[in-house]
Amino acid sequence: MILALAGGVGGARLACGLARALQPAEFAIAVNVGDDFEHLGLHVSPDLDTVMYTLAGLHNPVAGWGRSDETWNFMETLAILGGETWFRLGDRDLAVHVERTRRMAAGETLSQVTESLCRRLGIGALVMPVTDDRLRTMVLTSEGELSFQHYFVRLRCEPRVSGFRFDGAQDARLSAPLATLIGSSRITGVVLCPSNPWLSIAPMRAVAALEEFLAARRVPVVAVSPIVGGAAVKGPAAKIMRELGREPSALEVVRHYGASVDGWLIDRVDATLAAQIEVMGRRVHVADTMMTDEGRSLAVAREALALLRGLSP
Amino acid sequence: MILALAGGVGGARLACGLARALQPAEFAIAVNVGDDFEHLGLHVSPDLDTVMYTLAGLHNPVAGWGRSDETWNFMETLAILGGETWFRLGDRDLAVHVERTRRMAAGETLSQVTESLCRRLGIGALVMPVTDDRLRTMVLTSEGELSFQHYFVRLRCEPRVSGFRFDGAQDARLSAPLATLIGSSRITGVVLCPSNPWLSIAPMRAVAALEEFLAARRVPVVAVSPIVGGAAVKGPAAKIMRELGREPSALEVVRHYGASVDGWLIDRVDATLAAQIEVMGRRVHVADTMMTDEGRSLAVAREALALLRGLSP
Repeated sequence: MILALAGGVGGARLACGLARALQPAEFAIAVNVGDDFEHLGLHVSPDLDTVMYTLAGLHNPVAGWGRSDETWNFMETLAILGGETWFRLGDRDLAVHVERTRRMAAGETLSQVTESLCRRLGIGALVMPVTDDRLRTMVLTSEGELSFQHYFVRLRCEPRVSGFRFDGAQDARLSAPLATLIGSSRITGVVLCPSNPWLSIAPMRAVAALEEFLAARRVPVVAVSPIVGGAAVKGPAAKIMRELGREPSALEVVRHYGASVDGWLIDRVDATLAAQIEVMGRRVHVADTMMTDEGRSLAVAREALALLRGLSP
Repeated sequence: MILALAGGVGGARLACGLARALQPAEFAIAVNVGDDFEHLGLHVSPDLDTVMYTLAGLHNPVAGWGRSDETWNFMETLAILGGETWFRLGDRDLAVHVERTRRMAAGETLSQVTESLCRRLGIGALVMPVTDDRLRTMVLTSEGELSFQHYFVRLRCEPRVSGFRFDGAQDARLSAPLATLIGSSRITGVVLCPSNPWLSIAPMRAVAALEEFLAARRVPVVAVSPIVGGAAVKGPAAKIMRELGREPSALEVVRHYGASVDGWLIDRVDATLAAQIEVMGRRVHVADTMMTDEGRSLAVAREALALLRGLSP
């Protein structure tokens, strides 16, 4: 079984390709919950929803968040009523948040709700939050410590970043399905999706039990670079790298992940970096990694799986 | 100042007429909250919303509940996700429930939220819940004791009714604005709207402080009969009367309210009952009471106000 770690649009797109390349029983996706927050009294899980909507073919490919075929009458009315409208929730999207919040208030875990919603949406692959416990990414910035969505949506990633804190991570346990999967020894390889290393992957790895699993190195780990040609495909990764004093390049991402990744899939535009990455002891595949449609997501997924197979004993 | 007691569609329509007939500072509406319930984790106040939407001109005049210009994408998606869909919440309507729930969770009272929402919707009259405390109408039926919405919406008023219980009424205090208004001695007359006497007016009067105010009889009280020609204009009032062993007629409603009402506005089709009502010591006006549009609501409101003036010292 292949385990992918994902968060954000790039993660969802590769997860979608992997789901097409693999049988449902061969594929599981652990998703970041550091972006989760309570909004309008609702539990919103942006990364889980992006993965879920993308796998179900319901995502909005232009916006990179929310659903296709969406309407905004709730939001429009909320504005008239004087409610908070900086985080936009579409009418259809809202059904997920209301139903999730209701079930969690009734005692279900985030994993249980996620599993149920995915089944309802016809998703075969196992989608699970990295943890069912509270884990919140806090962004240390020039304007102080900000909650993730405050930084990301409300302030459009404008404040200068100096670091991160993953609130709750020290006490967070693996979600039940992820703990079961890791305990079962059924995982044969891990794929780190081209998600933001600091905002999407780091909060997941802040859960000690996941980091211990990765550190044990019993199965190969491959990663797809989220930085292509010195820029982030989407989102603030390159900006954050500069603010942290790092060159925005695939090479810096490779250095950041260090020995926890065995093989790298980098884009053709970064082909000249391959030799330097190999010198660091990593296997490298070079391919077109831009997932501009589902066909391209499948192609990138197949490259990542081929890399993984080449690293398997 | 005129105080109206209202709940349901007939109540909202007369309230709308009264709001047009009076200056905003002359008119206040206390609304039933016995229909309120928690649904999908949201605090839903159907009677307050019907009054609010009707006064704002946003009501759906065909359905008798919800908003005009409504869409149902939330509900449609919720059905796909396996959520509860027996109580229908439109996309625009939902904004009220989410915002109300959020504010109440943050510590605001139902009165405060109602006042704020009404101001946002441009409503000049004072709209207030009868109480900010928990008050829930329970319907005693052939199928046992049912919560109001379970009886009213889910089972479409089909179970045979044997009585009512107003859960929480014994401890319920008047809402802050209603307590202030009653305490101020500014009320010069009371109008009992043509709302269901058992389902809309009775739960309000179950709040002891309101009943004490009405019983003190310092100001005249007039009522508009919700039963016209032996039938309810809308809703289950006639069915309930039969199940309680009463003839569905305006006369029975007059008997039910007894000495707490000084004057009655009854419909032309019930003109023959006028003499019997007058014998009971009540003043009677006969008029066309069907509020089929806003013009008719205004006309009925003016009749009720004329009746009230005639009873004032």
